[in-house]
Amino acid sequence: MATIFSRIAAGEIPSYRVAADENYYAFLDINPVQPGHTLVIPRREVDNIFDLSEEEYAGLQRFAYKVAKAIETAIPCRKVGVAVVGLEVPHAHIHLIPINDESDMDFKKKASVSAGQMEKLAADIAKHFKL
Amino acid sequence: MATIFSRIAAGEIPSYRVAADENYYAFLDINPVQPGHTLVIPRREVDNIFDLSEEEYAGLQRFAYKVAKAIETAIPCRKVGVAVVGLEVPHAHIHLIPINDESDMDFKKKASVSAGQMEKLAADIAKHFKL
Repeated sequence: MATIFSRIAAGEIPSYRVAADENYYAFLDINPVQPGHTLVIPRREVDNIFDLSEEEYAGLQRFAYKVAKAIETAIPCRKVGVAVVGLEVPHAHIHLIPINDESDMDFKKKASVSAGQMEKLAADIAKHFKL
Repeated sequence: MATIFSRIAAGEIPSYRVAADENYYAFLDINPVQPGHTLVIPRREVDNIFDLSEEEYAGLQRFAYKVAKAIETAIPCRKVGVAVVGLEVPHAHIHLIPINDESDMDFKKKASVSAGQMEKLAADIAKHFKL
């Protein structure tokens, strides 16, 4: 059965899309720890990110790099933090999180972001994304 | 002035070395959140990881991929978690952390690992590292 992330990338489940190409898909985390918290996934379903081949992993990271540059431009922040944990949804994903403080990477904290703000954040990041 | 990480990579400050080549260096975090917690750095000094060029970033991530594969082989764990925060030492670094549970990525928790264990962990990971 397709993972929830595969269904999001396929457009079967709606998402706040940030960037996409034939191999990768980026969208806002629906439970963001900070406004602009983005997930980057390979379209190919793989649970453990290190089960991707080195080429696939490097391709995913290049795509994530471009998304991170767009986040840096769109959202005022000190840095864009990166995290891969992967113990919840069994589909490899990279978290990109605009941070100003170490505690902004705390996954137990959740930001309250309205649907309207999510739409605007996604559009702002998408506008600065360059393939 | 050279960052502490540049001095570690240059061998001026001792470290539990895991892997190295002419561009990258990997060593155990001296304040590990889990045994086997490893840092991967570019030898070139740059504060923000996304100030690396896309090529440099991809190269660093390829090196980190190989280190993560070695950690997976050397240390029993569910996954190898990845984190880039970068608000402390102004030299870009990727954390690779063997994890069994979401809370194993909590940077406020520290593992107690003796010098002897650190040496053994570094040697075990190094043994499985393939360039």
